[in-house]
Amino acid sequence: MRLGIDVGGTKCLALAVDDEGNVLDRERVSTPRGDRLIEDALVALIETLSVRSGTPISQWRTIGLGVPGLISRDGVIVSSPNLPDVENFAVRARLESRLGRSVLVDNDANCAARAEWRAGAARGHDDVLVVTLGTGIGGGIVSEGRVLRGWNGFAGEIGHVVVVAEGRECACGRRGCWEQYASGSALGRLARDAWRESWADSGHYAIDLRRAAESGDRAALDVIDEFGRWVALGVASLVHSFDPRVVVIGGGVAHRAEVVRSSVERWLGHFLYASHVRRHPEVRLAEHGEDAGAIGAALLDTTSVTRDGSD
Amino acid sequence: MRLGIDVGGTKCLALAVDDEGNVLDRERVSTPRGDRLIEDALVALIETLSVRSGTPISQWRTIGLGVPGLISRDGVIVSSPNLPDVENFAVRARLESRLGRSVLVDNDANCAARAEWRAGAARGHDDVLVVTLGTGIGGGIVSEGRVLRGWNGFAGEIGHVVVVAEGRECACGRRGCWEQYASGSALGRLARDAWRESWADSGHYAIDLRRAAESGDRAALDVIDEFGRWVALGVASLVHSFDPRVVVIGGGVAHRAEVVRSSVERWLGHFLYASHVRRHPEVRLAEHGEDAGAIGAALLDTTSVTRDGSD
Repeated sequence: MRLGIDVGGTKCLALAVDDEGNVLDRERVSTPRGDRLIEDALVALIETLSVRSGTPISQWRTIGLGVPGLISRDGVIVSSPNLPDVENFAVRARLESRLGRSVLVDNDANCAARAEWRAGAARGHDDVLVVTLGTGIGGGIVSEGRVLRGWNGFAGEIGHVVVVAEGRECACGRRGCWEQYASGSALGRLARDAWRESWADSGHYAIDLRRAAESGDRAALDVIDEFGRWVALGVASLVHSFDPRVVVIGGGVAHRAEVVRSSVERWLGHFLYASHVRRHPEVRLAEHGEDAGAIGAALLDTTSVTRDGSD
Repeated sequence: MRLGIDVGGTKCLALAVDDEGNVLDRERVSTPRGDRLIEDALVALIETLSVRSGTPISQWRTIGLGVPGLISRDGVIVSSPNLPDVENFAVRARLESRLGRSVLVDNDANCAARAEWRAGAARGHDDVLVVTLGTGIGGGIVSEGRVLRGWNGFAGEIGHVVVVAEGRECACGRRGCWEQYASGSALGRLARDAWRESWADSGHYAIDLRRAAESGDRAALDVIDEFGRWVALGVASLVHSFDPRVVVIGGGVAHRAEVVRSSVERWLGHFLYASHVRRHPEVRLAEHGEDAGAIGAALLDTTSVTRDGSD
């Protein structure tokens, strides 16, 4: 049995899962503000699931955390825009001291990637890109059977790959970041722009974009197509960099959205270098939805996160 | 003793090197046209260095090739713009059959990266990005102690990362590729544009840009600064994806060019996400110049290139 917690800006989701990532139990709480209160909430979640499953804290095969933001290899939350009062918080060391056992920590998008790779849409493949489209874009890169973490542990911050030099302002303070064009928020903007042009007469103020596209609405299809094009543009650059076998698209806007998947796949073929002589990666939809981060945290293992990056 | 050959569009350079990458002997020939003639030329180079060093062909620790273009994991030259008559040529299998021993093959830029990582500017580090600025941009990504190859073996095609959506046309048929803005060719264009504006009076038709910059020429410094900015823009996206400890800049235009290095480093600080809370990668100049590809080919080893990508 493994225990994983997705530490989000608004709530913390704890899951008990088996080695195949099947969810056996779950518990969630609102995320309190400040590092010490978060620490207490995490300990309480772990105790609750331990008591309920009859698993002593020492007996979980893994206790893992997925945390948004920049997470160092040794489990320090260096910076996290979604956890405003938290900076340079050694959450791993703190929990290990409280619990008397090992705890593993990684970025939440890396955890989501691990869930899709080990127990989801990309199961069985060694080279995988997982792109999570939400408020921003999170990502995880699996190369030759390992989730890449890099020197600091900050690998996979693909939302800040620049796709338009001197383009739109990003919340990070720079310009032209991919997430300004291909995140869920960006899709919302595309939809609003299209609505002003095409849907103003139809009174669809809160149109369900995907349902409209799936039922053949031309303006909705155009929005999805434009969105898929921006997603594919960034995916293509990542394919050129590390050549994955499978590209998994996740996050709320892509959840079970075949119309988004097929648009990304079509445009990716268009954007790939030497498109006619290479095998193209498959584009798949994520399987785990909002549970992905916690499942992936539960599937963390020591070989992938304990290397000391201070070379 | 190891033998590495850099198979270029105009010449093939063969080096005998020791395990530390020190060059002990060298031989070069013009690259003939067509796969069978190239094969013969490679066999002849190998025989020449074997005879001269008194090393039987079976006794080289490695015989490795660095080849431009898309090179599959099993040593097939799938496509190579620089070797016009070569397509889907199983160079590894052909040479192994001719020589009666193992031969290793990788992309030339991956080999150059290996040379800088194992025996050059990034020696001793596990997370390294090597960017080679030439006619285009070649690259190699070392992550956690391995040169990434990816599913097909095509990882590291970073020259075709898009930095300007709908930007300049690229030779690859797409638009906005990084190498249109930050390669040696792109620097030439920047210099020509600046020359028309600022240097027309000085008669510097064939101005040595770097020397001018190093001696404080304002127009030359501006060109280098603009160039460094474009290089850094793409490097930053790769840093966000892979988080390297060291970024090595190589290729003719950067050879011993401190003025280029410092410009890239300065702009990289500007382009990094969460710049103030993260450690920045060091930017270094490549050490091996034109020998890098052949040295890296000689340093290829089985663990890094023989995994079958057909998962």
